[in-house]
Amino acid sequence: MLNSNENAYGPSAATRKAMAEALSNSNRYPDDQVPALKQQVADFWEVGKENILFGAGSSEFLGLTSLLVSSTKGNIITAEPSYRVWNGQAESFGLQFKRIPLANDKTHDLAGMMSAMDASTRMMYVCNPNNPVGTYAEDQSLRSFVIECSKKCMVLVDEAYTEFANLPSLKDIAVKNLNVVVAKTFSKIYGLAGARIGYVIAQPDTIKKLAAFQPWPDANISVATTAAASAALKDQAFVKDCREKIAQARELCYKTFKELSLDYIPSHTNFILFNIGKIGVEFSKKMQAKNIYVQYRDHFGGKWCRVTMGTIEEMKTFCTVLKEIA
Amino acid sequence: MLNSNENAYGPSAATRKAMAEALSNSNRYPDDQVPALKQQVADFWEVGKENILFGAGSSEFLGLTSLLVSSTKGNIITAEPSYRVWNGQAESFGLQFKRIPLANDKTHDLAGMMSAMDASTRMMYVCNPNNPVGTYAEDQSLRSFVIECSKKCMVLVDEAYTEFANLPSLKDIAVKNLNVVVAKTFSKIYGLAGARIGYVIAQPDTIKKLAAFQPWPDANISVATTAAASAALKDQAFVKDCREKIAQARELCYKTFKELSLDYIPSHTNFILFNIGKIGVEFSKKMQAKNIYVQYRDHFGGKWCRVTMGTIEEMKTFCTVLKEIA
Repeated sequence: MLNSNENAYGPSAATRKAMAEALSNSNRYPDDQVPALKQQVADFWEVGKENILFGAGSSEFLGLTSLLVSSTKGNIITAEPSYRVWNGQAESFGLQFKRIPLANDKTHDLAGMMSAMDASTRMMYVCNPNNPVGTYAEDQSLRSFVIECSKKCMVLVDEAYTEFANLPSLKDIAVKNLNVVVAKTFSKIYGLAGARIGYVIAQPDTIKKLAAFQPWPDANISVATTAAASAALKDQAFVKDCREKIAQARELCYKTFKELSLDYIPSHTNFILFNIGKIGVEFSKKMQAKNIYVQYRDHFGGKWCRVTMGTIEEMKTFCTVLKEIA
Repeated sequence: MLNSNENAYGPSAATRKAMAEALSNSNRYPDDQVPALKQQVADFWEVGKENILFGAGSSEFLGLTSLLVSSTKGNIITAEPSYRVWNGQAESFGLQFKRIPLANDKTHDLAGMMSAMDASTRMMYVCNPNNPVGTYAEDQSLRSFVIECSKKCMVLVDEAYTEFANLPSLKDIAVKNLNVVVAKTFSKIYGLAGARIGYVIAQPDTIKKLAAFQPWPDANISVATTAAASAALKDQAFVKDCREKIAQARELCYKTFKELSLDYIPSHTNFILFNIGKIGVEFSKKMQAKNIYVQYRDHFGGKWCRVTMGTIEEMKTFCTVLKEIA
């Protein structure tokens, strides 16, 4: 399973223990635990409790932020390629997408995205680092871009993968700007994709508007998940360890890609996009025959694979199989 | 904690065991487990997999069904009183509520609700049995009503509490009618309020429309919760046991209410609405002083309390305290 950008090392032992201890309380709504978690997350980011809203993964907020801007129909600007699982949901709210190709170096073409804004633009979406390419925008350029765009529309910054490269968060902009929402998740480096918890950091009035779209604020997170997130956030040693192991896994893959003369995009995340044009259309089938599941993708006029970094052992196996079929 | 209609006996031992076993997989999305659970739920209700959609509690679907009908603004008809936590969410989608008082016997005034329908009515909401009163609509009358209303608008039947009285589901109408959605939950008799899982039963085209509002279909349920729901549904002995114990708890309370000459509404759920006009405004405070949390409510021009049935022991304590303060 190297196809969903999950963390093969997660959840951490401390996180599993916290979940195990909490689950017998699953008959009770987590009303007593959620405020404490909210305070903990707020303290972690040095923002206020009123700047935080929880959901069942950050995906919930890609949807709810789209819903918020959809009160007047219009378009969302996003990079091509970028994370798009949520795009259909936004379209179901009556929004369209304007997809702006990445720059030549495969980073966001921020200037191009800004010049694509028109009177109908309701939202700017930036996934940073960007899934599926693994590149990130330089901090100061991104900050200027976000502030400038926010004067005209909502800006949604998806920081699902920031921890893999220890990138700064744009939370400091979000807490004071009505038009900036930063989405964070426990699904990736924290190893809790299947626990379904993420959150947004935003200005309190924006938080209130998003919360009004939930059954009640923070309604969709479970007792066990609340406990998991609390333990996971405390366990920064696990985060650091994962960051290092995943960096090792990337180096392992780069070495193999180079040996095989396969183009790849240097990544700052737990996945790498590499070109499989030389291998041919049978690539995915051949991988699956070896019980390796990876994502095949058409990008930049060619054929690519997005491979998630599993454990070091898993990536050694992946590299071995890749050498066999390449 | 007798204020949130939770099940004091839950989750069952088998359910806790299933959750404990599943939680170490919380780093993986539950993509492999959800289809199996969907088949299990479909088999349980003798409907198709395509008739089922999961969410983080049935509340998710009170919201999404409201969102679905809100594409043209209008009103939702609901009983007064009825379950209303989700009403603010529907209002945030631009819908208004027309609240139709219950009949004299405290059941839904179905005729009154039907005659309240107008050209702007987008949805009819029926909570059956009805929270917070605990009464239910007679099956044949309700079926005729739902079918008739569905010719003009969406009908949302909230069956959160049916299991407490072993009431028939209206799922057979829902699976063949585009305008009928039946909402079910694991939060109540299954004792999983804090696990956040519910679902709807509906016609496949309606399911598709609701799923389009989710980040991806069934996106908001966790690995542990998926395992919990599967085990809970299998454990019908637990459900039967809870139903019987809660019926005993109700009788215990009725006896005390009668002794104290407090009006109450005979309930078919795990809560009872009883009149506290004789006790006075200090009721809630006095209860809290004894560490008993109950819901105070203004209804029918009087003061009422909705008390959730906890364990038999808890209800004995509740009755003792009630005798002290009444």
